[in-house]
Amino acid sequence: MTDTVISSMSKEVVIGFERPFIVIGERINPTGRKLLAEEMKNGDYSRVEADALAQVAAGAQVLDVNAGIPLADEPAILAESIKLVQSITDVPLCIDSSIVAALEAGLEAYEGKALLNSVTGEDERLEAVLPLVKKYGCAVIAISNDDSGISEDINVRFDVARKIVERAQDHGIPVSDVVVDPLVMPIGAINSSGRQVMELVHRLRNELKVNTTCGASNLSFGLPNRNGLNTAFISMAIAGGMTSAITNPLHGEIMQSVRGADVVMGHDAECANWIAANRDPNAETRARRGRRGGRRGRS
Amino acid sequence: MTDTVISSMSKEVVIGFERPFIVIGERINPTGRKLLAEEMKNGDYSRVEADALAQVAAGAQVLDVNAGIPLADEPAILAESIKLVQSITDVPLCIDSSIVAALEAGLEAYEGKALLNSVTGEDERLEAVLPLVKKYGCAVIAISNDDSGISEDINVRFDVARKIVERAQDHGIPVSDVVVDPLVMPIGAINSSGRQVMELVHRLRNELKVNTTCGASNLSFGLPNRNGLNTAFISMAIAGGMTSAITNPLHGEIMQSVRGADVVMGHDAECANWIAANRDPNAETRARRGRRGGRRGRS
Repeated sequence: MTDTVISSMSKEVVIGFERPFIVIGERINPTGRKLLAEEMKNGDYSRVEADALAQVAAGAQVLDVNAGIPLADEPAILAESIKLVQSITDVPLCIDSSIVAALEAGLEAYEGKALLNSVTGEDERLEAVLPLVKKYGCAVIAISNDDSGISEDINVRFDVARKIVERAQDHGIPVSDVVVDPLVMPIGAINSSGRQVMELVHRLRNELKVNTTCGASNLSFGLPNRNGLNTAFISMAIAGGMTSAITNPLHGEIMQSVRGADVVMGHDAECANWIAANRDPNAETRARRGRRGGRRGRS
Repeated sequence: MTDTVISSMSKEVVIGFERPFIVIGERINPTGRKLLAEEMKNGDYSRVEADALAQVAAGAQVLDVNAGIPLADEPAILAESIKLVQSITDVPLCIDSSIVAALEAGLEAYEGKALLNSVTGEDERLEAVLPLVKKYGCAVIAISNDDSGISEDINVRFDVARKIVERAQDHGIPVSDVVVDPLVMPIGAINSSGRQVMELVHRLRNELKVNTTCGASNLSFGLPNRNGLNTAFISMAIAGGMTSAITNPLHGEIMQSVRGADVVMGHDAECANWIAANRDPNAETRARRGRRGGRRGRS
């Protein structure tokens, strides 16, 4: 039983073994989104705002915020974005950058206990990022690759994860504040990549006792009907013990799969969330009409 | 590694640990289908025929055939239905009845190696059904309940399964010809029923070395959006090692979930089935037009 607690000013979210799965919304990321990149660079955050609200409405419990725009002042833009998103939503954020200065600017701007995305297994990176994690008291995503790249050998990926967890402990960071991403490889290229994830999650959970996350949509890279495949994968990853994922909550099938998986895992008491998310709107309208003498609209 | 081989006159289907999941189409069953029951009783098998063809087209690799109609000659109707379905499809069948005489009439009419549905753990039932399994050389579904009903204690359900497997061996039936249904309870009533299935499948596979099946839609009984929940459940059951299910292949989300789960499990070499099932029809039309000088229709 490991609980990773993160928070905003007013809300706590817990990623944990015996808890509902946590969806970290991935949309606020200019990578591959030319228009968003251009807007963010020019100080127009209207799309960031819209993406934040839409993802929370769709059920994301955490939002990833990334401002990786070439030739832009990433630390400043990331800090701005974080302040903005915190001003309009109450969910905890995942501060996402490959630039250490941007991670620090994000942490400086953030109110609460963030999830930092990410640290990898290279010594230089560990020694740059882990002191920030300790200083700001945040949690961190540990990605199982290092100088040698991403190994196809899951033992190597497990060893990288263990190295990061141990190094974090050396810095005074508890195991519960490290969330490991075992790395999901495209299954079109590596047929065993789904099984690899299952096996790694099992070992990470049982041997390192850490929570886990992943970029769930990597699996389907290059294949048709990616959403369909991602939908099956995410519920299977949950069955295998994965406790969070960075994904797109605006895809209804994905969120339905997560909610269904929570039910199957026994993490939705009395199926209350499932029932709430799948209410018959007509029945509700009828009930409302009955109660309110024919009024149709929502109050 | 256990392979359960069943067959029609011309086609073999293998239910196995390291193989694609087998969907047994559940539609040919008059229970709760008043019109179908009435028609079958009156010797009108047009709907049986349509259901058979539609389920095979949707991807069912095996069809369940049940003729349980009150006050009708079930053995004769079951035998008729089986002959008819075998005359228009080439998939193996699952001969489904609670009446031993109907099971025998079905086996007598069937050409190939059928899957018999089912035997339970009561001594009387075991001694009535297992000799048929041996005599006709078929495979059989073993349901983990007995005189005492369905236990909520999974150890009891496991013990019933073990008893059936051992009794089958006493009758000279190999373990590979017994497919165990661990029983899926409604999760709206028993919050742990999804976890129970996972744990039972794990034990059945590792301790008894048997293939498994289930009535996948039982889980969602009484809840809204049953298909959505069944879709998440079936991929999770596959992740947990379940090797077949009796379900409705006409629900596209279910079949998509099964195909996606096969990919994730590494049971779809080069994702060929996934790609075939998710081809862009426009791309195909364009390719066909190119090849055939503007013809639009299928040949």
